[in-house]
Parts: sequence; C-alpha cells; structure tokens
Amino acid sequence: MTTQKPLVLITNDDGIEAPGLLALTDCIRAISDEIEICVVAPKVQHSGQSSAITVGAPLFIEDRGDYNGAAMLTVSGTPVDCVKLALDAIVPRTPDMVVSGVNHGSNSGNAITYSGTMGAVLEACTVGIPAVGFSLTHHSIRADFSLSAPMVTDIAARVLHNGLPDYTALNINIPARITPLGVKVCRAARGHWSEEYAQYIAPSGRPFYWLTGHFVNEEADAMDTDEYWLSQGYISAVPVTPEQTAFYALDKVKELLN
Amino acid sequence: MTTQKPLVLITNDDGIEAPGLLALTDCIRAISDEIEICVVAPKVQHSGQSSAITVGAPLFIEDRGDYNGAAMLTVSGTPVDCVKLALDAIVPRTPDMVVSGVNHGSNSGNAITYSGTMGAVLEACTVGIPAVGFSLTHHSIRADFSLSAPMVTDIAARVLHNGLPDYTALNINIPARITPLGVKVCRAARGHWSEEYAQYIAPSGRPFYWLTGHFVNEEADAMDTDEYWLSQGYISAVPVTPEQTAFYALDKVKELLN
Repeated sequence: MTTQKPLVLITNDDGIEAPGLLALTDCIRAISDEIEICVVAPKVQHSGQSSAITVGAPLFIEDRGDYNGAAMLTVSGTPVDCVKLALDAIVPRTPDMVVSGVNHGSNSGNAITYSGTMGAVLEACTVGIPAVGFSLTHHSIRADFSLSAPMVTDIAARVLHNGLPDYTALNINIPARITPLGVKVCRAARGHWSEEYAQYIAPSGRPFYWLTGHFVNEEADAMDTDEYWLSQGYISAVPVTPEQTAFYALDKVKELLN
Repeated sequence: MTTQKPLVLITNDDGIEAPGLLALTDCIRAISDEIEICVVAPKVQHSGQSSAITVGAPLFIEDRGDYNGAAMLTVSGTPVDCVKLALDAIVPRTPDMVVSGVNHGSNSGNAITYSGTMGAVLEACTVGIPAVGFSLTHHSIRADFSLSAPMVTDIAARVLHNGLPDYTALNINIPARITPLGVKVCRAARGHWSEEYAQYIAPSGRPFYWLTGHFVNEEADAMDTDEYWLSQGYISAVPVTPEQTAFYALDKVKELLN
C-alpha cells in the first residue's frame, strides 16, 4: 500500500502563457518535490471574467506537456470552467489545494467581484477544497515575481498542511517591486470604480467606449484594510467567502416586504 | 421648478429580445406612468456571465426605440457592462433603482455566483443604488410571467419608495406555473453543482465537453432557505451583499499565517 502524494491544482486568468502562472508553479514545487501538481489554465487570457461559466458552447482540453514536474493543460474557457472541468474530467482525485495566479495586477479592494483569478478560488471553495488566489500589484507581463516567491511558498505550504476554515478561501495581494515586509491578515477595503469609459469616434462616425477609470477607496483612512497594508509594503491576506446572503439585513427586509 | 420623475434602470442577462425583460418593464410601468424608465440590456444572450466585464475590447451602444414608454438600448457586452456604461454614458442622472430580469431560469441557491442577472444587481449595489434581481424558475422562452406580475410590481414599488439597507440588494426567485402563495424573506441554500460535463467525441476523434449537471442542495432539510420556500410555492426574497470578506475567519487566518 502506498501513501498518495498531496495533489495541488493550479489555475489563473491570464492564461497558460503567463509568467505569473509559471512563477506560482515554481513556488508550489518549492514546498516539496513530493507534491503532484496539475496546472489547468485558460488557453487565452481571461481577465475580468469573475465567476463566468461557458453554458452554451463546448469546451476543449489541450495537453501542453510538463513544466517543473507539473502536468500542464489548457481549457478553452474561463477560470471557473478550468476548475470545474479539471475536477470532473482531468485530475485523478480531489485536490488537496487549489491555487490561482500569480495574477498580473491587483485583486485588492472590491476587485474580487470582477476577478477571474478569484472566481476560480471561490469555485474550489464552494466544493470544499482549500483555495488561495495570489495577485501582484503590477500589470506588466515582465513583472518580477521573485521578490515575494519565498512568502508565496510559505503561505501555500501553511494552507496545504493546515487547511482553511469552512467555506473560506484566501485572497492574497502582493506589493510589486519590493521585498514585502511581511503578511497582514485584514479585510477588503470597500470602494468602487470611477470615471469608467473613454469615448472614441469610429471613422464611420459611430461612438464607442473603452473601460478605464480607477479604484476609489471609500475607506482611505481605515488601517485594517488590504489597500492600507499594501500601501505600507505588506502582503495582504483577506479571508473571503462565496456566501453572499446579507444575514444582518434579514429583519429589515422582512419589514419592507411584509 | 419641476420635480424630477423617479428614474428606473432595467437590465438583464438574457438580452434585449427576452420576453422576461419586457415583462419586467411592464411591471415597473405598472407602478406609475410617472416613472422614467431606461432599459439597457445586452445585445445578445449572456447567461452565466457573473460579474464579468469587458476589459480588452470596445463597447457599442444601440438605440432600439421605445417600449411601453421606456427607452430601449443595447450594449455589446455583459450585464455588468450594461450597468457601468449606462451609469457613465446613457442615463441622465443616477437612477433611483436598478432592476434586472425577469431571468428565464432560477437564480436561487448558489446560482448568484454565476448569474449575470445578479452580477448587474451587485454592480448597482456597489455604487449605492437600490437594486433587485428577479428570476422565474423556468428556462423556456415561452415562460408565463403574468401569474407573478402583480407581486413583482409590488416588490419593486416597495424598494423604489423605501430603498434597501446599506450595501444590500435583493435576489428574488419566483416559482413557475403557479400564482405564488406569497413572499418569504430568507437566506440562500448552500449547495454546489454535480456531475457537470457531458462528454462527446468529435468526428476527428477529439473529445469535447458540455456543461450539464444539477444543483445539489446541501441543506435539503433546512426550512429557512430560498430552495425550501420555492418548493412550497412562495416567492423567495434573499438580501444579498457584494461584501465577501469572511469576518468570522479573520482570527483563525491570523493564527494560520502568523
């Protein structure tokens, strides 16, 4: 009788070619050579896909060989498609952990709402698998993931060995261009996006619009948020949940509707 | 000096042609002839789009004329794109309410995670606008929305006149084929989707996969959930929030990572 190796599923939303995906694979490999790693990532970039799923079209899987001892595959869909299809048809057993990223760009504040990286994490959490999303606050394809790599490995190892609270996942954001000063567990800053669309006129005279704008932190003075700790040079670690019922509002809404 | 009429923005994820969108427009019009209504819906069907946004491509707006005194427009993107672009470039002032639907199909249980109908609602909620999503538990394009129309009008009127608690929106699901027995304010049933992909073989020999499966209610015995009340013939009204920080887990995660 043999003891099964731990199995880790890795995905992202920047697609199979993203340097951040390979950086995260290296970080998981650094935990142990004994971990079985399966990477199942979107075939093409899927930023801003949230928890979108492909409902009206077929999905295809492609084998992309091996990287640092990890099986690499693509799915022709979204990050959540990758997790769902990996669990149903690719991995040999339920993974012990799902990690997503390292995203090229921040997923702090309310970005979790739109993030495909975090959509994949919440999907795994919903079916009971410990799951962590990692994002670097730098959009460049040439972003340097090496400065935070030992901390990413440490966080992932702790989750792999100890699990996470029930129905809870982690949203990890990493300050770019520095060696982070440490890890701060905190809540997400509330905010929204403002001045959102650049407007253009096509040669035909038809107007068109392109998403732009910036995150407005509605809690710029709060010192217990991810935005604050990132600004101070720390990695932010926000526990997140797929649960969206507003339990605090049940009584008020009963008054309103009854 | 004139008093401004109330302004209601309507959207959905089934697209501008969906009968449920027109049914919802009729329900809002039934509140009052004095309401200004603007419908901004996806040009094509966008089910399962969650809070996805279009980040790497332009968006186009099309004017589709008037329906029952409402301005009708399309956006070439997702439900959240519709809300964002409507607020930035279409409506003349901040709407007093955003309603989404009526969706052709249930958004009870954990479907809020994947629902474009509810993605639009959560987007409006994030920027402080009272918002309600309506879904009928029947996927057919010929679903009968008339049986619940007076109740949809009543719920929307109450929200328009009284607002909703801070950072809270409503997820309304309506049982199909009956006159609902009433409205029950409740929480969403926890669950997940199971047996998810049908597998096929293309003529070339290449396998492909198509999403299927069914919702597994992990709380089938609970009598305070939306799934329960829908099964009893009631409309379910779940207060929901865009807030996803798991506050209950902050201490445990601090232990884990420090």
